[in-house]
Amino acid sequence: WQIVERDGIMQLQRSFTFRNFAQALDFTNRVGELAESQGHHPAITTEWGQVTVTWWTHKIRGLHRNDFIMAARTDEVVHANV
Amino acid sequence: WQIVERDGIMQLQRSFTFRNFAQALDFTNRVGELAESQGHHPAITTEWGQVTVTWWTHKIRGLHRNDFIMAARTDEVVHANV
Repeated sequence: WQIVERDGIMQLQRSFTFRNFAQALDFTNRVGELAESQGHHPAITTEWGQVTVTWWTHKIRGLHRNDFIMAARTDEVVHANV
Repeated sequence: WQIVERDGIMQLQRSFTFRNFAQALDFTNRVGELAESQGHHPAITTEWGQVTVTWWTHKIRGLHRNDFIMAARTDEVVHANV
């Protein structure tokens, strides 16, 4: 995970690679399920063979402890796939 | 649709708004189905209430006629939802 700044907002971002588009989209859906279950939603960019997940807390326009927890949970979603 | 330049590559981009995360993710999946059916894949950024779709042709690092066709088909996917 990298901390990036976008439009003046600190965000936590990581890209994950996959073998094709379908596997990337499948991961997107699983991260989406995680987000819905926690009521906290990232930006998820789905491309052929790659998904980039970005967490931040809209209300504070920056990073909250919860974003780091969600990042760790996102990693668990990947490992659940292996 | 707007033509944007990212990393020196011309791309066709449009954002669509939705009432929540679930509807945004549903649209992402339908655009994904379209992409798989045509063998041409965009970048799709899914957020709470918004999906941004970006079309370009990797091979030519720019825009091909096919990207404009895919953009029009993406619009049809939205309208199919209404």
